[in-house]
Amino acid sequence: MILSGIHLGLYTDYYELEMAQGYFYGGKKEEQATFDYFFRSNPFRGGFTVFAGLQDFLELLSQFTFSESDIEYLKKQGFKPEFLEYLQDFSFAGNIFSVKEGEIIFPNEPVLRVEGNIIECQLIESLLLNILNFESLIATKAFRIKLVSGEKIFADFGLRRAQGFGALHASRAAYIGGASSTSNVLAGKLFDIPVSGTQAHSWIQSFNDELEAFRAYANIHPGNTVLLVDTFDTLNSGVPNAIHVAKELEEKGFRLKAIRLDSGDLAYLSLKARQMLNNAGLDYVNIIASNQLNEYVIKSLLKDQNAAIDAFGIGTEMITGKSDAALDGVYKLAQVDDQPKMKISENIEKNTLPGKKQVYRFFDCDGKFYRDAILIENENPETVDRIYHPVYPEKNTLLEKCTFEALLKPVVKSGKITFKKQSLPDIHSHLMKRASQLPNEHKRFISPHLYKVGISKKLMKTRDTLTKKLKQKIDSI
Amino acid sequence: MILSGIHLGLYTDYYELEMAQGYFYGGKKEEQATFDYFFRSNPFRGGFTVFAGLQDFLELLSQFTFSESDIEYLKKQGFKPEFLEYLQDFSFAGNIFSVKEGEIIFPNEPVLRVEGNIIECQLIESLLLNILNFESLIATKAFRIKLVSGEKIFADFGLRRAQGFGALHASRAAYIGGASSTSNVLAGKLFDIPVSGTQAHSWIQSFNDELEAFRAYANIHPGNTVLLVDTFDTLNSGVPNAIHVAKELEEKGFRLKAIRLDSGDLAYLSLKARQMLNNAGLDYVNIIASNQLNEYVIKSLLKDQNAAIDAFGIGTEMITGKSDAALDGVYKLAQVDDQPKMKISENIEKNTLPGKKQVYRFFDCDGKFYRDAILIENENPETVDRIYHPVYPEKNTLLEKCTFEALLKPVVKSGKITFKKQSLPDIHSHLMKRASQLPNEHKRFISPHLYKVGISKKLMKTRDTLTKKLKQKIDSI
Repeated sequence: MILSGIHLGLYTDYYELEMAQGYFYGGKKEEQATFDYFFRSNPFRGGFTVFAGLQDFLELLSQFTFSESDIEYLKKQGFKPEFLEYLQDFSFAGNIFSVKEGEIIFPNEPVLRVEGNIIECQLIESLLLNILNFESLIATKAFRIKLVSGEKIFADFGLRRAQGFGALHASRAAYIGGASSTSNVLAGKLFDIPVSGTQAHSWIQSFNDELEAFRAYANIHPGNTVLLVDTFDTLNSGVPNAIHVAKELEEKGFRLKAIRLDSGDLAYLSLKARQMLNNAGLDYVNIIASNQLNEYVIKSLLKDQNAAIDAFGIGTEMITGKSDAALDGVYKLAQVDDQPKMKISENIEKNTLPGKKQVYRFFDCDGKFYRDAILIENENPETVDRIYHPVYPEKNTLLEKCTFEALLKPVVKSGKITFKKQSLPDIHSHLMKRASQLPNEHKRFISPHLYKVGISKKLMKTRDTLTKKLKQKIDSI
Repeated sequence: MILSGIHLGLYTDYYELEMAQGYFYGGKKEEQATFDYFFRSNPFRGGFTVFAGLQDFLELLSQFTFSESDIEYLKKQGFKPEFLEYLQDFSFAGNIFSVKEGEIIFPNEPVLRVEGNIIECQLIESLLLNILNFESLIATKAFRIKLVSGEKIFADFGLRRAQGFGALHASRAAYIGGASSTSNVLAGKLFDIPVSGTQAHSWIQSFNDELEAFRAYANIHPGNTVLLVDTFDTLNSGVPNAIHVAKELEEKGFRLKAIRLDSGDLAYLSLKARQMLNNAGLDYVNIIASNQLNEYVIKSLLKDQNAAIDAFGIGTEMITGKSDAALDGVYKLAQVDDQPKMKISENIEKNTLPGKKQVYRFFDCDGKFYRDAILIENENPETVDRIYHPVYPEKNTLLEKCTFEALLKPVVKSGKITFKKQSLPDIHSHLMKRASQLPNEHKRFISPHLYKVGISKKLMKTRDTLTKKLKQKIDSI
């Protein structure tokens, strides 16, 4: 049924196919295009974004082909025979350059570039945006939670509140961002993520009483028992019964792993529960908290209220990237054959940067992030000593150079993936390394300091010349 | 690759499997359970929710089985042999009762009920919540947009900002809620939704000038051309060039269908563009608007500013159900064998209603929604003349009866779907009929009047007796 054995060629916006057909019959199918993927503002009013979804996208891209029934469907929509023949044999055969998955990225910089004939570049737009926008959103959200939870682990419990099958991408991205495990078993299997979970209220309710329910669970998982203590009354029933079972486990040579709080005031209840556990000599039993958590609540619990919580289970807010729910990433045409292309918008922030470009990250001599600069592809970064705000050129700044690196690296050549597949823990490690290089003022939640991303003078001139040409054309209408 | 040919048995939270194994070895596998699906508050601070996702869920439920490699994976996670053998042959064989898809529903009422052995009921929880929560959220959002757009159509353009494959469920739900079409071609094919789209800025940019781009598009789609007019300058370039091409089309016996505005102030630009089109004798050319639209912006454009917009393309906000991003639906154990079960929470609103129940909708003598009442399953609605607030019994109200109907109907019996599959337009029609019966004060966006949902005295007494029993047990700890 749904999604089983499918080709993903139809996982695209209808207008991509309309335009592709237009290019096909309009004599443009051999034109070589360059598209940039970038976004315009950091999610969650934050100071950075975590790039995620690359490997997932590239694997799905290899499924971006059309089945016979897809072709039949498109025929019914009025697409023409020669174009449908072309689609029947279609697979993406262009080049892709990208920053690494797990990289920390900023608004306006092209973090991925696609080159190929204009039809193939156009057709894959929707899939690319769908996956990269979403996984980057969730990895960013998860990493914000990581920033406040520190050494305390947090698990993804979001499947039930996720946006349908978006759950799968989200669990992957949450793990990249810093979640320690997921409750979503299919995501665990598909992406090799540790899976975890405890018990629901239904387990407790299904027994005649809570103590019996706890005991039954501990009997089956004596070495790995977490007890949910809020089904009836956390402090008067749940915690006392958990202590009872912990003592029984001790007699059998086991230790109760944790209790879980899932309602009520988590600061108050965790401190009370901690005291009760400690008084019973159970200071080794951890306390896990869940229920509508996000980075702000966790920060408040841990930093302001010294809640006695050892680990968190996080659902809705992390799995949906609430309250943003989407990253505003776009995919814009930058060049056709040798001609740089751009768009001028009613909103000046939406003007685009023409031509093939490279992004350089400059570090200060302590190895910290200093500035990012967008240059014309083959421009020598050594020769650039001032960068300009991408929208407001009167804002510009000297570029002192200590070390730097080019962020866009080839990942697909002539349709074949050319980079070594990374494990998710490797991707997370890269993120952690980068995060240690990102100055703290950019990690602040409230009004973070804006990291400076500029364009070279040469790129600015290319853009301004093209803008002038386009405006002259408009004036002549 | 991902999701192709897969069984969905692993699309579940890890704890469902842990508990299932616990029931299996704990001598509980023959126990008959009843679970209720309900939610606690309307999304978007609204006065109602649209129930969607039922048919999609039931189809996915038939894929809720385990492949050999799934079993192998679970073995590695430490699940035990006899239980894995049980899973190998697993498919849901219980009963499901549900309100109709497209029904208007309210907080606290059980809108779907699952009966079966406790293992099967437990295992399907995550899939059920994942699909029903999300599709109901999006159908509700889309219907809110329908409420303000009236006769003007709106299309789902959300694929690029959707939460990964959540896009598919969302496009389906948006169509139920009132979208006229989707840009997502795969959703179109899978769910038989009309597909639509126009052109992107890249089409325009790929040509040497805008007029040439418009002309090329019109040549290929002469009878169905929509021109995107904001690539360089809406009023000074886009609209004049569109008028030019419209005139050329007229000479060939065709009519330009529409122009599309995608940036800038949509009220101002649409009025100016309307005037320019009319002055050129092109009053038949429609104006389509897109760019960060939602029900509030559309209401303001149409009602407050008389914008000259004929149709809308809606992306991010509809496809993600922004800013809620999730419906808070839950799935709670209500009965085991003949024993009613409930949960008492730290938050009194989270207490649950025990036992098997039926929901009745009472209409006034004009056929308008009057009250919903939750009764014990076989209680006679004719005998109920007062209903009580599910949480605060001191709030209660007389129930005057004109007509009424039972909302929960059997849809699955012993694992087999027993109801006739409905087309999405049929589901939308049902919604529209119900919406016409829902008094306007419940449809208001700002502080809507709360529709009254109450419980019968008999159900209240069952709950209070059980609560008392549970509290006595707690006091004795």
